[in-house]
Amino acid sequence: MSAYDTLMAFQRETEALAQVAGRLGWDQETMMPRGAAGQRAEEMAALEGVLHARRTDPRMGEWLAAAVPADDAAAAQLRLIARAHARAARVPARLAQDLARTTSLAQGIWAEARARDDVAHFLPVLAQVIALRREEAAALAEGTGRSLYDAVLDDYEPGASAEGIGAMFARMRPRLVSLRERILGRPAPAALEGHFPAAAQMAIARDLATGFGYDWGRGRLDLAVHPFSSGAAHDVRITTRVDEADPFNCFYSTIHEVGHATYEQQVDPAFALTPAGAGASMGVHESQSRIYENQLGRSRAFTGWLFGRMQAAFPGMRPGDADAFYAAVNRVRAGHIRTEADEVHYNLHIMLRFDLERALIAGDLMPGDLEAAWNDRFAADFGVAVDRPSHGVLQDVHWSVGLFGYFPTYTLGNVYAGCLHAALRRDVPDLDAALAAGDPSPATRWLADRLQRHGSRYLPAETIARACGGAAPTEGPLLDYLEAKFGALYGL
Amino acid sequence: MSAYDTLMAFQRETEALAQVAGRLGWDQETMMPRGAAGQRAEEMAALEGVLHARRTDPRMGEWLAAAVPADDAAAAQLRLIARAHARAARVPARLAQDLARTTSLAQGIWAEARARDDVAHFLPVLAQVIALRREEAAALAEGTGRSLYDAVLDDYEPGASAEGIGAMFARMRPRLVSLRERILGRPAPAALEGHFPAAAQMAIARDLATGFGYDWGRGRLDLAVHPFSSGAAHDVRITTRVDEADPFNCFYSTIHEVGHATYEQQVDPAFALTPAGAGASMGVHESQSRIYENQLGRSRAFTGWLFGRMQAAFPGMRPGDADAFYAAVNRVRAGHIRTEADEVHYNLHIMLRFDLERALIAGDLMPGDLEAAWNDRFAADFGVAVDRPSHGVLQDVHWSVGLFGYFPTYTLGNVYAGCLHAALRRDVPDLDAALAAGDPSPATRWLADRLQRHGSRYLPAETIARACGGAAPTEGPLLDYLEAKFGALYGL
Repeated sequence: MSAYDTLMAFQRETEALAQVAGRLGWDQETMMPRGAAGQRAEEMAALEGVLHARRTDPRMGEWLAAAVPADDAAAAQLRLIARAHARAARVPARLAQDLARTTSLAQGIWAEARARDDVAHFLPVLAQVIALRREEAAALAEGTGRSLYDAVLDDYEPGASAEGIGAMFARMRPRLVSLRERILGRPAPAALEGHFPAAAQMAIARDLATGFGYDWGRGRLDLAVHPFSSGAAHDVRITTRVDEADPFNCFYSTIHEVGHATYEQQVDPAFALTPAGAGASMGVHESQSRIYENQLGRSRAFTGWLFGRMQAAFPGMRPGDADAFYAAVNRVRAGHIRTEADEVHYNLHIMLRFDLERALIAGDLMPGDLEAAWNDRFAADFGVAVDRPSHGVLQDVHWSVGLFGYFPTYTLGNVYAGCLHAALRRDVPDLDAALAAGDPSPATRWLADRLQRHGSRYLPAETIARACGGAAPTEGPLLDYLEAKFGALYGL
Repeated sequence: MSAYDTLMAFQRETEALAQVAGRLGWDQETMMPRGAAGQRAEEMAALEGVLHARRTDPRMGEWLAAAVPADDAAAAQLRLIARAHARAARVPARLAQDLARTTSLAQGIWAEARARDDVAHFLPVLAQVIALRREEAAALAEGTGRSLYDAVLDDYEPGASAEGIGAMFARMRPRLVSLRERILGRPAPAALEGHFPAAAQMAIARDLATGFGYDWGRGRLDLAVHPFSSGAAHDVRITTRVDEADPFNCFYSTIHEVGHATYEQQVDPAFALTPAGAGASMGVHESQSRIYENQLGRSRAFTGWLFGRMQAAFPGMRPGDADAFYAAVNRVRAGHIRTEADEVHYNLHIMLRFDLERALIAGDLMPGDLEAAWNDRFAADFGVAVDRPSHGVLQDVHWSVGLFGYFPTYTLGNVYAGCLHAALRRDVPDLDAALAAGDPSPATRWLADRLQRHGSRYLPAETIARACGGAAPTEGPLLDYLEAKFGALYGL
């Protein structure tokens, strides 16, 4: 066997074990009995130890040095393997295992704290997670001149920097705030009202997943506190949540996670269990979930179909006509919860988290001061007070599991989705006719062909640029789209 | 750290990874999407590679040689680790991984074949599994003078031999056959009749699990084609199945699996994630599941309580009095399905499988001849023909996943349960009063204290002997119990 083939055979087993670790994470959030939390942390730590040892195996360096790629795809695989090898080599095994163990435990503690609205219950383990991630960031940044935050950001969005993201956010904020202010000066449209039994919601959620291209033969749908998608290739599972007062929560969470999941399912099968066989970055991933959810799922055309489907399932539902229903779906309000935010407010939620987590990782904000900082910032940005921690600093799972540097990729995803949507509309001019019939497949096929099938073969920005016909992604198309959509909706 | 402590720290991670492999098995039978089968086989093979490498790690031999046990429990740990180390060292890593991959795939193929009653669909992969297990058995037996079958039997019942089991089965058979013939010569009692909706069955199954001591904080109940229990210590999950025509299937499967699961849950917490922290053998395990299911669950006293519970849940259920209900629970019939067999026929099902699998492993029976051999033997032993493969050779999952040598431990378990039950009744003379109130806890507490808490600390036969007050286990008490119970029921 060539050095390349030997390396890939070894890597294939590493990828399989990484899938196992991901499945344990899925199990923990959906199936695991509460009392298993401590044992699960040991299991995760043991598995992380195995993964770390494989990624830092001295033979990896030899194989990488000797491997000759046969084509561009093979070169991409080598680039990705070298990147993971170099990253792992910077992190001591003990630290990698501590992180796995502590974040596994912290997730359960966060869930308890959130359920009890008890920040103090969460703070000690959050402080541990932050300390471990800062230690890891220092190891990753050492000698590179990068900041601690840039070092962790690189895990989720290779090539991105806090400076670049901060500059983009600074350009976006005035237009978003202006749009928000103008909308809130107008009369609010009617909200959805009715009786929405959980079973009927789940039936529609399943139909939505099918319609957006989710392959049930390689996935399943369960409930979770915080909806997520998990896995790659032949086993990609999604979760949603059900609120009987608000079916949009269930439906749009489902469409969102289907965007993530179909991205994984549509990657070239030849890349299965290889480094290229997964999404290119968290930002690119989020571009898929957000374009499914928003530009497609919350469009006038698609909501027209959804209106009919929901009218049949929920007799007596209000509003009673499709235009008002579209306005209800896209109602703009300064709410507390990021995952329930409208498209106008969503990125303001992200900017808040981006600034706070940069300060936490830099050491400029102490965990004990986080809740006050959150509440102050939220009041300033949204004009309303946080009424309880589960509506504020405890709402998101991310920090409990160590995902610092992850939040900005949500807005990057929105920006990418804006670019993709503009290109999609150029390429598929009659898309609205299909959407109005409840059929997003012309769009999902376009995305599969232009972007999803490539997996991680190209760098994130290149992945988007190739799909859009060559132009580097910018925030302009997203902001233009938002101003046009909400300008029309609110008569601005 | 001492050599012992170093070894135990290493072993603890191995045990944690073995728990992960077990959880993947649970997932495969309960949650996994069908299309993930191939990927899962790769994941299982990768994980088996990791486990095999750890169990054969050269440092294990050094630590074992240098370790000084501080007490009897530590000596038991060393004995168990040395045993696993020696076993793994005999099996090439390639073979261990092939077995994991092939059995993972074979299980799904078996389930398809069973659903379609299509033996031919299963035969090719069964032949592969047998060939791999024979290769493994040869590696395990080499130089020991043991037969191939004894080598695989030792995985499930350390210290047992086919010769000893065969001799015991030969002693049991005449009394069982005589009892069976006398019973079938009497009028059959009325069978259960009524309408038994799945949801109501599951509600009772949950109550039964709780009553028999299952700790829901460290477990969960799901549905599976073939009920099983899985996991150790803080995460021990059970499954059952529901047949709306036959609620006893669901209820007694649940009680059976709770017997397995509480055994794991009741092991001394100090043994968690150590070799002693699991059941002593499959035979001892089955003694727990069978005494819960039969000697307790199918007793006159307990069925009196269950009768009332079911009458309330299933209006119109027949028979309408508790004595006739007890007779219906314990109805003796020459049925096809082992897991639904009455206590009299059950061991005849095992003897059939024991003889066939010994011939398969010895190479005296070819996989292509298995179905005919099964059908001939079944007709001879039970006096009825097999009407379809899913009622015959395809009914059990075991051979698909390579569990050759496992079936005889079911009858060993019954024999052990007979001994334990005799001792339990001596020690807890007023047990029937509690059982009649639906409370098996005096029995389950006795079992937890006398047997379950010790885990694998003692060898299987010693585990039973200690619980029973010193006498080595024999088949006598089981046969005496069966003759007394069914003699009274059938007026023999």
